[in-house]
Amino acid sequence: MKNTIFALKKDSPKYKQIYEQFKLWIEGGDILPDEQLPPIRQLADSLHVSRNTTLTAYEQLVAEGYIRGEGRKGYFANELEPLLPQETFISHKEKKNKPTAPALINFRAGAVDQTHFPLKVWRRIANQVLTLPESFRYGEPFGEIGLREQISKYLLQSRGVKVEANAIIVGSSTQQMLIHLGHILKDDFSSVTVEDPGYDGAREAFQFHRFTIETLPVYETGADFSQLEQMNSQLIYVTPSHHSPYGVSMPIQQRQTLIHWADKMQGYIIEDDYDSEFRYTQQPFPALASIDSAKVIYLGNFSKSFLPGIRLSYMVLPQPLLNRYKNQFLHFEATTSLLSQLTMAKFMEEGEWSRHIKRMRLVYKRKMQHLVAALKEQLAENISIIGEQSGLYILVKVHLKRSEEWLIQQASSYGVTVYPTSLYFIKNNTDEPMVKLGFSNLSYDEIKLGVELLKKAWL
Amino acid sequence: MKNTIFALKKDSPKYKQIYEQFKLWIEGGDILPDEQLPPIRQLADSLHVSRNTTLTAYEQLVAEGYIRGEGRKGYFANELEPLLPQETFISHKEKKNKPTAPALINFRAGAVDQTHFPLKVWRRIANQVLTLPESFRYGEPFGEIGLREQISKYLLQSRGVKVEANAIIVGSSTQQMLIHLGHILKDDFSSVTVEDPGYDGAREAFQFHRFTIETLPVYETGADFSQLEQMNSQLIYVTPSHHSPYGVSMPIQQRQTLIHWADKMQGYIIEDDYDSEFRYTQQPFPALASIDSAKVIYLGNFSKSFLPGIRLSYMVLPQPLLNRYKNQFLHFEATTSLLSQLTMAKFMEEGEWSRHIKRMRLVYKRKMQHLVAALKEQLAENISIIGEQSGLYILVKVHLKRSEEWLIQQASSYGVTVYPTSLYFIKNNTDEPMVKLGFSNLSYDEIKLGVELLKKAWL
Repeated sequence: MKNTIFALKKDSPKYKQIYEQFKLWIEGGDILPDEQLPPIRQLADSLHVSRNTTLTAYEQLVAEGYIRGEGRKGYFANELEPLLPQETFISHKEKKNKPTAPALINFRAGAVDQTHFPLKVWRRIANQVLTLPESFRYGEPFGEIGLREQISKYLLQSRGVKVEANAIIVGSSTQQMLIHLGHILKDDFSSVTVEDPGYDGAREAFQFHRFTIETLPVYETGADFSQLEQMNSQLIYVTPSHHSPYGVSMPIQQRQTLIHWADKMQGYIIEDDYDSEFRYTQQPFPALASIDSAKVIYLGNFSKSFLPGIRLSYMVLPQPLLNRYKNQFLHFEATTSLLSQLTMAKFMEEGEWSRHIKRMRLVYKRKMQHLVAALKEQLAENISIIGEQSGLYILVKVHLKRSEEWLIQQASSYGVTVYPTSLYFIKNNTDEPMVKLGFSNLSYDEIKLGVELLKKAWL
Repeated sequence: MKNTIFALKKDSPKYKQIYEQFKLWIEGGDILPDEQLPPIRQLADSLHVSRNTTLTAYEQLVAEGYIRGEGRKGYFANELEPLLPQETFISHKEKKNKPTAPALINFRAGAVDQTHFPLKVWRRIANQVLTLPESFRYGEPFGEIGLREQISKYLLQSRGVKVEANAIIVGSSTQQMLIHLGHILKDDFSSVTVEDPGYDGAREAFQFHRFTIETLPVYETGADFSQLEQMNSQLIYVTPSHHSPYGVSMPIQQRQTLIHWADKMQGYIIEDDYDSEFRYTQQPFPALASIDSAKVIYLGNFSKSFLPGIRLSYMVLPQPLLNRYKNQFLHFEATTSLLSQLTMAKFMEEGEWSRHIKRMRLVYKRKMQHLVAALKEQLAENISIIGEQSGLYILVKVHLKRSEEWLIQQASSYGVTVYPTSLYFIKNNTDEPMVKLGFSNLSYDEIKLGVELLKKAWL
């Protein structure tokens, strides 16, 4: 075991976490007898803890006989005697019901970076909003006009979409917007085409309304439009800026093909522009809705770019649908926090939103680079990386004769959470197992440790 | 014009608001030529502004010729020359398209008291929540378990309802919960009985799912159950603690009748316990769900008791429905802010919630007394007051041969907003026009002024 670093969960004393992880590694044979442990100072630095914390953990391990100190030479693992047959000494890899290490590194895609959150500014504005009389009433059913105006400005500047504030509907989540949308579309349309693989949450929303589902095959290189003309659906749900989950962007030719198709079919394109802000190699492409807003239902949200827990999302509707939507939902209260809406409106108005996006693009770009570099270094020719140009996650295709489930279980027994991709596929299949790794909420050290543990787990 | 006091909106300089209101009154003939204006000191005191502010307003009026100062005798209105035929000098009451005064007093029922909001505590907890790692992820689809546990405790203590945290579903609003509920009920049930008059928002939710609507007649004295057995619906939506809008509580005999009915019909009672916290004369009755939780779908929310803009609501489901609900909505993200949920959970855990309810019960009780006293003093035998025992609004039945619309328009031309009640009625009718007056967000002075203006407007 060399250069081991790892990160700490926040809910038990730090020394205890260090102690427990080393104990597991030693018991599991991942640290071999007589193998040297990282020096106190180095471990403390890489974990951002005090040397005292590291020392306490090591002393505990010494006291319990797991390791020994050899003066200035440092600490070394002891050989352990098997105490109980079902415990210890059988390598994790070989155990059937292996004790799962506490999740140390979670490659969750649905979280955001906490360290760069604009805590001070957001607090200031949120605290200010709490003193406004308008915070003490019910909100507008389609969202606060101030926020809708700010979104309208943002869409024009960043996504090329020209839209009146009035045509923007504010809601809680993309799924909720899709369910509402389903209510106004299902009388005229009975089926919808979705990408395969594609965002499962959108599919759930369409299935909720019992739409027939047709599929548009998508590959790492992009979508296959050859069967588009043969499909019956007049609706298509796509993620053109950053395909979910492959991460490809739809080239302009395909965008135009789609617009023509919608025109011919008298149908609509539902464009989910869910994390278009984070493209690292070039400017984000303009949205489909910027080409022909009469054919496109545009969906955006603040979950990836700001905070998922704020539950703030929006939808832009072409005029006939907008009228129908407003008729249908006029009598229903907004579901999104009025306070969050007022705070976000002010945050955007003060320019903090665009500053935040710029900052986070850089932060995430660097994390992406770290993750990709670590994977290439540790797992080299055993994997392919998909989708590193943009977004807050990548897909890792593993060239092993193993199942997706095995990859996840194996990682889990090393304290690493990685995510399945099979749920995105309908008929289309991958030849090899593939997992999803989000990185937005991990530090560089956590990313590095996570990948090192994946190597141990998989190879 | 005697004893005039009025309150100030918060968004333009105070002297200007005073100036503009007097200008309107003088132009509209509500202050007659040579009528004395309130002394500077008295006006300043009743508006909680400095004497300087009042003086500035009066000086502006003097400068523009609306009033004159007569030394120590005070200020008096001048007679005005008509400048433009469509302006001024025709009494508001006689104008067809009368210039509407800026809404000075809004008897809105959907707002809460701002001055007693626990700003400091809430801010502290909210700011703290923003530093927790769990605030930077997606929330649980049915609500955060910590909040559900707190709600479970609250329901047991305050409403007599025994329920596991796990059987509580957190959502954004009562309407949203009803729409979700409709999704899982509409396969087995096609019609629902609602109170008439009753909460229009609930009716909208049932109509959204195309339920057939039957009606249970309700009067100022209570519901008429005589036709209950003849109805086809196996579902009934009721507001037993505080009928919306009449404010009556359902007596225990009727509660038992309902439970037996649901048992016999193999149906469900949907109990909307929307503002049960605010009963002024006695302890709130236990909820229907405390009698038989297997037959009752219980709905509660934080809109009236805390803050409508927080969008926090919940539903308790009997086991078979709970299973169905979880199956149906498992794949959908929560719509309620994770931050608000975590903050509210902590707020409840620290005992701040029950302190807040206790404090607000007293605050609202006093405001209710002020409103009722002012109405009795000013409008005396011209009105009847309905629902003064509980809740955050009353109904005022006006004994005049006028329409509801006239009452509202007339009030509006005096800068007072009152609300219609006709939207609550389906077949049932009132003999005389009735308006709804909420008071939660008004000060004593505002309540007093509002009622004084209503007298001017209506009599």
